[in-house]
Amino acid sequence: MLYPKILDKSIELLKRLPGVGEKSAERIALAINDFSEEDVKTLADSLIKCKIELHPCSCCGALTDEEICNVCSNPLRNKEIICVLENYKDVLAFEKGGTYDGVYHVLNGLISPVDNIGPDDINISSLIDRVNKLNNVEIIIALRASIEGEATTMYIQKIFENSNVVVSRLPYGIPMGMEIDYLDGITLDRAIKDRKKLS
Amino acid sequence: MLYPKILDKSIELLKRLPGVGEKSAERIALAINDFSEEDVKTLADSLIKCKIELHPCSCCGALTDEEICNVCSNPLRNKEIICVLENYKDVLAFEKGGTYDGVYHVLNGLISPVDNIGPDDINISSLIDRVNKLNNVEIIIALRASIEGEATTMYIQKIFENSNVVVSRLPYGIPMGMEIDYLDGITLDRAIKDRKKLS
Repeated sequence: MLYPKILDKSIELLKRLPGVGEKSAERIALAINDFSEEDVKTLADSLIKCKIELHPCSCCGALTDEEICNVCSNPLRNKEIICVLENYKDVLAFEKGGTYDGVYHVLNGLISPVDNIGPDDINISSLIDRVNKLNNVEIIIALRASIEGEATTMYIQKIFENSNVVVSRLPYGIPMGMEIDYLDGITLDRAIKDRKKLS
Repeated sequence: MLYPKILDKSIELLKRLPGVGEKSAERIALAINDFSEEDVKTLADSLIKCKIELHPCSCCGALTDEEICNVCSNPLRNKEIICVLENYKDVLAFEKGGTYDGVYHVLNGLISPVDNIGPDDINISSLIDRVNKLNNVEIIIALRASIEGEATTMYIQKIFENSNVVVSRLPYGIPMGMEIDYLDGITLDRAIKDRKKLS
């Protein structure tokens, strides 16, 4: 009885968003209801359009509304440095940094034996195809520091073991602005192993 | 260049939600994009439907998709106890409590001279009309503890000063589960004034 029925439907669906509970879903639905009618329609329209028109880039797997995403089609990007990421959100994070001028390869998942996700279930074979067409490739693996991330990193490293492809990964370390004593022991241990010589 | 254009539009609008910045808007848009096409359409549809069909209840001002909201039309609710609230979200909060069996009156705003919002700009005149048609009314004011909330409370109190309408307000006090030392001095001062005799 709580909500009018039509509001109920919005709230029920918004509750499925990550980190959004009943209360936040309520706030989002009511805040959208405070938009002008035109804006609500534009929002609704563009959500549907995104769902229909966005698809993985046929080269790198990032979301795009064209055949090839705007990173892969950019002639200024270095096609021989490929940063391997878990998902499209990670691409956005790198692009915000703004200085990386290589390209990406989005796996859209990580290997996870527990969840029955193997190498064939994620976007790895297209990475191999892609690399085989190039010379002097460097693959920079930037996957999250978890069992799944490390399993996937090891798998990719193994594939290119006896080739001339350089495989590197982001070091474990201290995020900018973070106090050292807030970091967990495992990160610190690994950061020490990944230490960078200054002189 | 960052996002595909169609994603950009969703993110731009979602950023207008309270407490939602660029990053959260991105997460929401991409999470909705992970819904099934049917669910995205249902969500989009129901957002538009809400905007078109929800309107203030002609009796109490709460949002409803019918002429009279389901609280006002419920014969089991005591129509002579009227709880005055700032907005519809507050109605939902009370209804979740589940024991209040009176009705509501939603002001859809608070008197705020600074923002040039006077008594005529909020839903007060219909409260007066409503009360005048009843005998033995009690008005319980449950507005937020702010200058605007208190100005509105005083205004309503003044209107019914020389009538037989009982006007009360929620006491200032300690929220359930809150540690005393986390409360600010003003709340504590007022809670002492609002103290309840036990024996």
